[in-house]
Amino acid sequence: MARNSLGREVPETWQGKRYDPYQDPFTRMPTMDRATRPLVRRNPGESKILPSLRAAIEKSGLQDGMTIATHHHLRNGDLLLNLIVKELDAMGFRNICIASSSVHPVHAEIIPSIRKGVVTRCETGVNGLIGELATKGELDFPIVVRSHGGRARMLVTDEVPVDVAFIAAPCCDETGNLNGVSGPSACGSLGYAFTDARYARKVIAVTDNLVAYPASPVSISQSDVDYVVVIDSLGDPKKIVSTTTRVTRDPAGLLIAHYAAEVIEASGLLKDGFSFQTGAGGTSLAVADAIKRKMLEQKIRGSFGCGGITGYFVDMLEEGYFRTLFDVQCFDLRAVESIAKNLTHREISADLYANPFNRGSVVNMLDAVILGATEVDVNFNVNVNTESNGYLLHNTGGHSDTAAGAKLAVVVAPSIRGRLPIVRDEVTTITTPGETIDVVVTERGIAVSDKHEGLRKELLRRRLPLKDIRQLQAEINALTGKPRPLEFEDKVIALIEYRDGSIIDVVRQVKE
Amino acid sequence: MARNSLGREVPETWQGKRYDPYQDPFTRMPTMDRATRPLVRRNPGESKILPSLRAAIEKSGLQDGMTIATHHHLRNGDLLLNLIVKELDAMGFRNICIASSSVHPVHAEIIPSIRKGVVTRCETGVNGLIGELATKGELDFPIVVRSHGGRARMLVTDEVPVDVAFIAAPCCDETGNLNGVSGPSACGSLGYAFTDARYARKVIAVTDNLVAYPASPVSISQSDVDYVVVIDSLGDPKKIVSTTTRVTRDPAGLLIAHYAAEVIEASGLLKDGFSFQTGAGGTSLAVADAIKRKMLEQKIRGSFGCGGITGYFVDMLEEGYFRTLFDVQCFDLRAVESIAKNLTHREISADLYANPFNRGSVVNMLDAVILGATEVDVNFNVNVNTESNGYLLHNTGGHSDTAAGAKLAVVVAPSIRGRLPIVRDEVTTITTPGETIDVVVTERGIAVSDKHEGLRKELLRRRLPLKDIRQLQAEINALTGKPRPLEFEDKVIALIEYRDGSIIDVVRQVKE
Repeated sequence: MARNSLGREVPETWQGKRYDPYQDPFTRMPTMDRATRPLVRRNPGESKILPSLRAAIEKSGLQDGMTIATHHHLRNGDLLLNLIVKELDAMGFRNICIASSSVHPVHAEIIPSIRKGVVTRCETGVNGLIGELATKGELDFPIVVRSHGGRARMLVTDEVPVDVAFIAAPCCDETGNLNGVSGPSACGSLGYAFTDARYARKVIAVTDNLVAYPASPVSISQSDVDYVVVIDSLGDPKKIVSTTTRVTRDPAGLLIAHYAAEVIEASGLLKDGFSFQTGAGGTSLAVADAIKRKMLEQKIRGSFGCGGITGYFVDMLEEGYFRTLFDVQCFDLRAVESIAKNLTHREISADLYANPFNRGSVVNMLDAVILGATEVDVNFNVNVNTESNGYLLHNTGGHSDTAAGAKLAVVVAPSIRGRLPIVRDEVTTITTPGETIDVVVTERGIAVSDKHEGLRKELLRRRLPLKDIRQLQAEINALTGKPRPLEFEDKVIALIEYRDGSIIDVVRQVKE
Repeated sequence: MARNSLGREVPETWQGKRYDPYQDPFTRMPTMDRATRPLVRRNPGESKILPSLRAAIEKSGLQDGMTIATHHHLRNGDLLLNLIVKELDAMGFRNICIASSSVHPVHAEIIPSIRKGVVTRCETGVNGLIGELATKGELDFPIVVRSHGGRARMLVTDEVPVDVAFIAAPCCDETGNLNGVSGPSACGSLGYAFTDARYARKVIAVTDNLVAYPASPVSISQSDVDYVVVIDSLGDPKKIVSTTTRVTRDPAGLLIAHYAAEVIEASGLLKDGFSFQTGAGGTSLAVADAIKRKMLEQKIRGSFGCGGITGYFVDMLEEGYFRTLFDVQCFDLRAVESIAKNLTHREISADLYANPFNRGSVVNMLDAVILGATEVDVNFNVNVNTESNGYLLHNTGGHSDTAAGAKLAVVVAPSIRGRLPIVRDEVTTITTPGETIDVVVTERGIAVSDKHEGLRKELLRRRLPLKDIRQLQAEINALTGKPRPLEFEDKVIALIEYRDGSIIDVVRQVKE
């Protein structure tokens, strides 16, 4: 074990692989060439259509010990990963690694296959029960958690070679041209799957909506797809995209949003060319709403919105607040409809969005990002992976990517959640280093990183409740009491990889 | 030297590199991995803007003996290649190789730099004076001619590594997001430059139209571009795209077009889902016009048009004759305007368009293609590279790619050109093997390859002037006389590479 620059004890070797401890957000440089794969020739008249998932698995050359991937654009409505693992189980595979872009609660269905040794490693963060059981020591399933940009980096550097990528394709033609914008399992952007299609050794498009050649638009191209399989259904439409995403009505949430918008204005970034990312949560959308009103008043025309896209951002695009949306994932139906028809609503890969190891990602051009947290600490480190019970319940998403890229990274969170204070001496798990976080906003006050002296002064001038983060912590603790420290076993059940591939933290088995 | 399967004597080693003789169109398989390049990390706030072409050349790390590339979307209006070579000359570079997607007559300006040894090799076909002088032995400039798909293959296989790609960018932002659809040098699709942007070791965007971030749409992405240089002008708009492309009014051309359309109809391919490529010549457009009328009469809805796109194909898209256009190059202003706004008018790379070494290119899905020729021979081999004086004057374009991919490859040509017969015992240079050509149409008759017995019968049933190709040749020769054979020196001045990388023919110095 080594101690990284944030004081966390992290392994230098884990599950047979070497890792470097986290140092800082920006200086780790790529020393390798871009990943490659064997070239393939397809002549006219050759068919890619295979009759079943099993036939595709057979054709793919998958063997015990190899790595598969899926994308998570169907979110909790995804049926594909479960179908694949069930088929692998039936075919007698063992020791398969899952390197999907994320795993959702719906994939708890694969737990029996984990116990059986069909799938035994997870090169992706997990949402839900699998992580909980792993943290409790009830499931032996080593997990490496990565940000969206970090996962793209992993593929582009070949750190985790994916042997077979199964790409859920809501609309697909016989050659494998595919998109996510139409069909019963429409999910919009397929941004997380782009990099898999370019780097996986074999690429299998799986669709429940085979259309005449050529599918249009094309998100992933025939020139990258090996085989096409048609199945009955990729997913449950009701769980794929929400029908609507809404601004919060909670008074505390609205107050937080008001403060966050004031912070952005006070930073001086809110001017022509402003670029912005928020999540899909009600408070985030309330910030967007407040920012939009400021832009209207001040006649500000922004440049781009990015990240997971909601109908709220689509409105801002259509009403001229942004010139472009960079969309790596659609959060609601309105976003899906928009990306299908609006050229300025642009589908982008996770690589372009956030990979630190390319010639320039979109997050590098962000002015402000609104981020969530399960905990923050007095050094502005943020946890989004574990809850305060220590359970690994959430994937990183673009959290550490956008925090590193944006000029202003603002964490918004209620000061108390589940009777526990949001501000800690130390977060349970460091997802995002405090060096890349600029402001923490709660309904009880705003804490600004020391490096932003000007911003602090401007907040005071605006009579906003600026507080030292320790003072904010003390005020919250006065209400909640100081939380009891969690107890952990030595056993590391997951690595939290920073976007550059270094290890920023680990998750240990919880002492029950 | 070895004799290839078409009887041409071709070198096995030339200019220090090994080559395989051509065997057949489809069996040569890739045995290598996809090309790679070093990964680069760009952090937030780093600028890519450099003050001059010279600064960019310096930053690129270019050294004597290395290879540069440009794209030819600005066609005969391109200023960039000349500017670069002039700068290389001024900076004292020697022995640079040009691997652009094509070289046009305007680039005759670099001839003094060729004589001086600044640029000494050409890994691209050439149009115009440079080829003429090379064929006459007046310029020492070894040339390897490739098809569009073959050039993409060369990059993807790393057969010719490009050290620095200079990408003329009609619209570009500070991070290198760029497109060809707006600005004074707008040219539409940048399809030939896509593969350079992915594989060249350094990628420099050169623009005369720097726009606010983010440029939109994005053809080539910030994540692939190393540097951005702003210059006064990329090109002469009048020579970049024609303002209009028109159907021929020549009676022989119209007769040829009528025959060609009848052939396509007789082939049985003209039904729902029909896909089609023609060039921008007046006869080709007349074929498109005749096909369109047949589609209207028979209520046929096609699938896609592809290749270099004209306003004529844009009309067919907008009027519902095609669902999609795959556009690797815009031939006229109407095509430029359309690709800027219509999601179903899709910009594609030369790789996706025609590279034989990928998981499936667009040409593989073509039903019919209309092709030109400077000569055809009694074995249906086609020459588009040299004229009947033996001069290397034309690049291959997508000729051999589409011929190999399409179900029906139809050569249209006047029976007599410049008093010389179009049908020869042997073409001067084989660009495209007869095995991939199905029909030759002249105003004096239609010759169909032996393999299409059904089509021959159907043409006879329709009382079309079907002729054996030797009979057609004899009829033409009766008018023109048998042409005097050209005399050549031994010296090979250019290789004609088939799309799969094998050598289908050479161009020898002409005996004057």
